[in-house]
Amino acid sequence: MQAIGIDLGGTKLHAALFSDSGEIITDRTVLLEGRMGSRVAELIAGLCVTLLEESNISPDEEKTIGICVPGIADNLTHRVWAPNIPGWNSFPLKQFITDAIPASEVIVASDRTCYILGETGMGVAKGLSHVVYMSVGTGIGAGIMTEGRVLHGSADIAGAIGWLALQPPYVEEYSNSGYFETCASGTGIAAQARKLSGQPAVYPDSRSVFEAYERGNTVALRVIDKAVELWGMASANMVSIFNPKMVVWGGGVFGPAVRFLDRIYYEACKWAQPISIRQCRFEASGLGQNAGLIGAGQLALNAIKTYEKQ
Amino acid sequence: MQAIGIDLGGTKLHAALFSDSGEIITDRTVLLEGRMGSRVAELIAGLCVTLLEESNISPDEEKTIGICVPGIADNLTHRVWAPNIPGWNSFPLKQFITDAIPASEVIVASDRTCYILGETGMGVAKGLSHVVYMSVGTGIGAGIMTEGRVLHGSADIAGAIGWLALQPPYVEEYSNSGYFETCASGTGIAAQARKLSGQPAVYPDSRSVFEAYERGNTVALRVIDKAVELWGMASANMVSIFNPKMVVWGGGVFGPAVRFLDRIYYEACKWAQPISIRQCRFEASGLGQNAGLIGAGQLALNAIKTYEKQ
Repeated sequence: MQAIGIDLGGTKLHAALFSDSGEIITDRTVLLEGRMGSRVAELIAGLCVTLLEESNISPDEEKTIGICVPGIADNLTHRVWAPNIPGWNSFPLKQFITDAIPASEVIVASDRTCYILGETGMGVAKGLSHVVYMSVGTGIGAGIMTEGRVLHGSADIAGAIGWLALQPPYVEEYSNSGYFETCASGTGIAAQARKLSGQPAVYPDSRSVFEAYERGNTVALRVIDKAVELWGMASANMVSIFNPKMVVWGGGVFGPAVRFLDRIYYEACKWAQPISIRQCRFEASGLGQNAGLIGAGQLALNAIKTYEKQ
Repeated sequence: MQAIGIDLGGTKLHAALFSDSGEIITDRTVLLEGRMGSRVAELIAGLCVTLLEESNISPDEEKTIGICVPGIADNLTHRVWAPNIPGWNSFPLKQFITDAIPASEVIVASDRTCYILGETGMGVAKGLSHVVYMSVGTGIGAGIMTEGRVLHGSADIAGAIGWLALQPPYVEEYSNSGYFETCASGTGIAAQARKLSGQPAVYPDSRSVFEAYERGNTVALRVIDKAVELWGMASANMVSIFNPKMVVWGGGVFGPAVRFLDRIYYEACKWAQPISIRQCRFEASGLGQNAGLIGAGQLALNAIKTYEKQ
């Protein structure tokens, strides 16, 4: 049984063949180049075929394909909602790939689910059963594992922590992506810096704010210090709620914000349930940009293990 | 197989014999009268024996006993930490009752676990698999069910939402019981009213604050309006994180605060993940003071069902 993992990002597709132990044997990347709807699914299927051919794997051999999608994967209808892929409002991805690849079993999951599977399967949280993965990039979301199981919620939108309420009063600015994401995501940090400075052209992205922070820029100091406080409060809340063994920090912002991990933990210690926070370590993701891909591989390998047990 | 449920409160013990469908057949209450340590466990065992004798159940008949404790029930060591029972720092309750009652299987769980089992088994959330129970009384805690399983965390202290960080900056006042509990528990509401009014004798408890609110008292209005905002924010956070079908409000404060449920939901709608909050109903607990007892009965009945399946 072959295990394939695929990570669908906003601009590219990354696929790999995995060993039984979850290591990448061979991988390939292709750009989406503005593809929409079923053309994206065709690209996924095509990349699978290429990977299999290059590895001299016969089309008849049974294979399990895990796919990481940037959105919601409904585990009843098996349809995908992905806001960044035009035409994927309710796309039947599992059906499409199952039909396109002979002898395949396809499992689709959200990026949040794949991140936590990647970290607990092959990353810094390997072997742990109670883990929270804080993904801070363009947006903010959490992958959550309790007792070894991934939290999905009633409609697979659990872990939407970009919407965490951390400071009243509510203002209209938060309505698009939630309070926490508005203030402390990559997009949010850049937007806050632009707003505070009154200079819309100066901070195109969060990286430029981190660079200004290094130079002691006052606006950048205010925005990043606020983000550190909010990362501390939000993770404190996850610790009080879940009593996890570890909080893993990943996504594009961690990255440059990894240097603040001690300050974030210090802030979290003030707020969190005191026994829980002492039992919990904060770590930076070791998988980096491969977290989704490796998690998709774990998705495939877990399905194979379940299948072999039956 | 007989099912017994026992709810250990801060001042009294409430025990019942349950039917297979989870209804109370007969129940009894005794006061703790300041008992400590193993004397409390002896009282529990004694009350079990009384219940069985009164129902003409032979001591040899097999019985399952669920016990709801106000604290932490470690599910590895089976020891109980209950801050309000002197001497229960690490008390071997399961062992004690198993030894004291012939032919018994004993299951011990925290009050948070029992509340959510009670509500999903026999209460307003009957039959639902994704539910959050907000217990707002002297303290604040949450019982959480996802995919039909109760969330415990790595050391059974999940759901410690009294510690939720909902407004920076952190001040020392929150160090004893957490920000949310300091401002919006029963104890917290009374303390905030005393602090704001500068009259330490006027507000002995939250009920007096709710009464002053009815009279249009300015201090009470400020304290309760703040609590409503925080209940809304906290429940919004639980909805964004868990994507539940229902949030159930119970504990002594709900009670008088049930009249604010619409306002709380309105506040939560501002902050929460918009799809999740639309899929979620807010309801008052229908079990009231019996939530822990009925949950303890569910604990016993669930164990019997598991046993019968094997």
